[in-house]
Amino acid sequence: MSLENDMRDMGVRARAAAAAIRNADAATRTAALKAMAEHIRTSALYILDANAEDVAAAKDAGLAPSFIDRLALTPERVEAIATGLDAIADIPDPVDAETARWMRPNGLDIARVRTPIGVIGVIFESRPNVAADAGALALRAGNATILRGGSDSQMTVANIGIALRAGLRDAGLPEDAIQIVPTTDRAAVGMMLQGLDGAIDVIVSRGGKSLVARVQAEARVPVFAHLEGVCHTYVHKDADAAKAASIIVNAKMRRVSVCGATETLLIDRAVAPSLLPQIADALRVAGCALRGDDAARAITPMDAASEEDWRAEYLDSILAVRVVEGLDEAIAHIARYGTSHTEAIVTEDAAAAESFLKRVDSAIVMVNASTQFADGGEFGFGGEIGIATGRLHARGPVGAEQLTTFKYVVRGTGQIRP
Amino acid sequence: MSLENDMRDMGVRARAAAAAIRNADAATRTAALKAMAEHIRTSALYILDANAEDVAAAKDAGLAPSFIDRLALTPERVEAIATGLDAIADIPDPVDAETARWMRPNGLDIARVRTPIGVIGVIFESRPNVAADAGALALRAGNATILRGGSDSQMTVANIGIALRAGLRDAGLPEDAIQIVPTTDRAAVGMMLQGLDGAIDVIVSRGGKSLVARVQAEARVPVFAHLEGVCHTYVHKDADAAKAASIIVNAKMRRVSVCGATETLLIDRAVAPSLLPQIADALRVAGCALRGDDAARAITPMDAASEEDWRAEYLDSILAVRVVEGLDEAIAHIARYGTSHTEAIVTEDAAAAESFLKRVDSAIVMVNASTQFADGGEFGFGGEIGIATGRLHARGPVGAEQLTTFKYVVRGTGQIRP
Repeated sequence: MSLENDMRDMGVRARAAAAAIRNADAATRTAALKAMAEHIRTSALYILDANAEDVAAAKDAGLAPSFIDRLALTPERVEAIATGLDAIADIPDPVDAETARWMRPNGLDIARVRTPIGVIGVIFESRPNVAADAGALALRAGNATILRGGSDSQMTVANIGIALRAGLRDAGLPEDAIQIVPTTDRAAVGMMLQGLDGAIDVIVSRGGKSLVARVQAEARVPVFAHLEGVCHTYVHKDADAAKAASIIVNAKMRRVSVCGATETLLIDRAVAPSLLPQIADALRVAGCALRGDDAARAITPMDAASEEDWRAEYLDSILAVRVVEGLDEAIAHIARYGTSHTEAIVTEDAAAAESFLKRVDSAIVMVNASTQFADGGEFGFGGEIGIATGRLHARGPVGAEQLTTFKYVVRGTGQIRP
Repeated sequence: MSLENDMRDMGVRARAAAAAIRNADAATRTAALKAMAEHIRTSALYILDANAEDVAAAKDAGLAPSFIDRLALTPERVEAIATGLDAIADIPDPVDAETARWMRPNGLDIARVRTPIGVIGVIFESRPNVAADAGALALRAGNATILRGGSDSQMTVANIGIALRAGLRDAGLPEDAIQIVPTTDRAAVGMMLQGLDGAIDVIVSRGGKSLVARVQAEARVPVFAHLEGVCHTYVHKDADAAKAASIIVNAKMRRVSVCGATETLLIDRAVAPSLLPQIADALRVAGCALRGDDAARAITPMDAASEEDWRAEYLDSILAVRVVEGLDEAIAHIARYGTSHTEAIVTEDAAAAESFLKRVDSAIVMVNASTQFADGGEFGFGGEIGIATGRLHARGPVGAEQLTTFKYVVRGTGQIRP
């Protein structure tokens, strides 16, 4: 019962803080973000000490080196957190921005304006910088947050939270606009997914498959989920050979662990004999293993792909390769196996490009560019809290604007409805 | 098991139809909508016959006269359904509309374009015209629908469905873009709320408290809910007396059964002695009963309001009245008792108006206008499927644009990410 009361109390305090944050002016939110960056810098030693304790415990627990790498901070990584906060302070404040305005025949003047969502619950796993990114982006958009990090990063996140709250205080804003759940009890996650008696408006989740499954099963409030990216790059028969090779190597190998990495290469039968060997060579040189269908393997040697490969989000130096008959088959493959995240076509044929862009039903569709551009920073959003894979409200990179909702402002002169 | 298989099959067929509807051009969707209107007209006698059976059964079952009134069709009401379809055909097609476009320093050209949500599940109660309105608005926005009406309107809705599907067929579109659940088994509603194995992208629900409670408890997919409207009109100390009386009588009494009807009048203490008597008289002449706090009752006689009255969505000729100290207290009352639907201020003070518009956190905020303007038609949306009371994606009147989502279209010339 005590945990439940504590969590409910956090919800009540977040709701009250959200009203204050919403009604503050943009300059005050900016001042808080800049103060938060300074507090991260001045408390870097505390954050690093806490992180060292978390890392030592994780090592004692035998956690994987890749996990420890995501958890561990260095002075450079702490400075990167502060720099990220400064960058978020520089994003135009979206609150009260008018996105449409029109006049009705009866003289009613109707505007649609951005307004904060309210209270955002953020559930994340190992990377402690998510606490700062998420709390700050949400604040830029006028929201309060309740942050729940992974139990293995508890000490680090708590210390980051102290710095963020100090920044709010410096700007005269309520500290409760950013709260860190102070327990590793997993029941707290369940309570957040239930919405804390209506206090949480939306959940943002960032984590692995077990967290995703739990969120899907238990959430009673809307969720901006960050799910799998099984992204495709399709080399059309009218592709430029040099662009195709360069784009695919980058789309797969620049960073294999990001959700926008291409996982499957589709290539038209008409050009596979001439283009696939050089693409495959370039990938192999970069350290990538290939798994292909029979047609691809007849052109250049590679392992055989099975049905599971078409659905695989490798997040590794492996690429599935399939030869297709043309645009329709490529689009059908993407519709069947894709996750509606990001897909690209490489072609010099403008009509084929436009058809692909229209017919592929993914959050991001591209022509002649690397799928690794699927990123809020690259889109010019100044930061992101993740890439939403749902279809509603937020889709693709989630920046400050995506953390707002809207209201209609109607200005009349005494109109009554007939 | 058979119902489950049937429902799952509807989901599969809706998903396939959705892709065809999305990729059709706007003119084809328009042709289908116009053909649907014609089929409603030519099959009016069948629809009226079916409706007579539904009405007879409802009378036998002893259902309330107000329920029967919502259920019953007349030739004029059938023609109104057809006229509504023609009006929806005339709404600009939102699919593929560009809502933003910008260029990145690296030359990437990024556009955000509207795209259909996909498959919309609509769960509604007595009014059979909702089947036509919802199916048609969803189609205008490029979506497929699965419609589940109330069991008491089953025959009527089935016959409306036949006409809608005939219109799709005439335009060469798949009939399965509009499907009517062919059973009164309430288990079908539960299956829709579970999303039919991922086939349903969003649920739109229109109905009473028991349906709302079921949707809230069981939905595993996003919901555009149409909940309570406890709307407020606030008469500020600088209100124009004539506007105040005219707006309040209209906001309360034009139609008492709509969700945008004002349920509570707030009035500043400074002007209550001079304005409240004439407002109260005008309301009483229109047939409205008043329930007030002590301060209001000291000015003009009325019944005493209790705490429940501040939370009541009367949908009846009753108005709660409270005297407040000023803008802050009015806003605090709305924040505490309101449902974030629609609130209005009556004032000639521009600064007070702007403060109210900014600080009140409702879907629609108004100055010097009747809250009964909370309506998609009045907003110029050409129709609506309801007023969404959630905060995400769709908020306020839900028209065709609100039934779309978006994707990012990225046009490059070979860019790779550094």
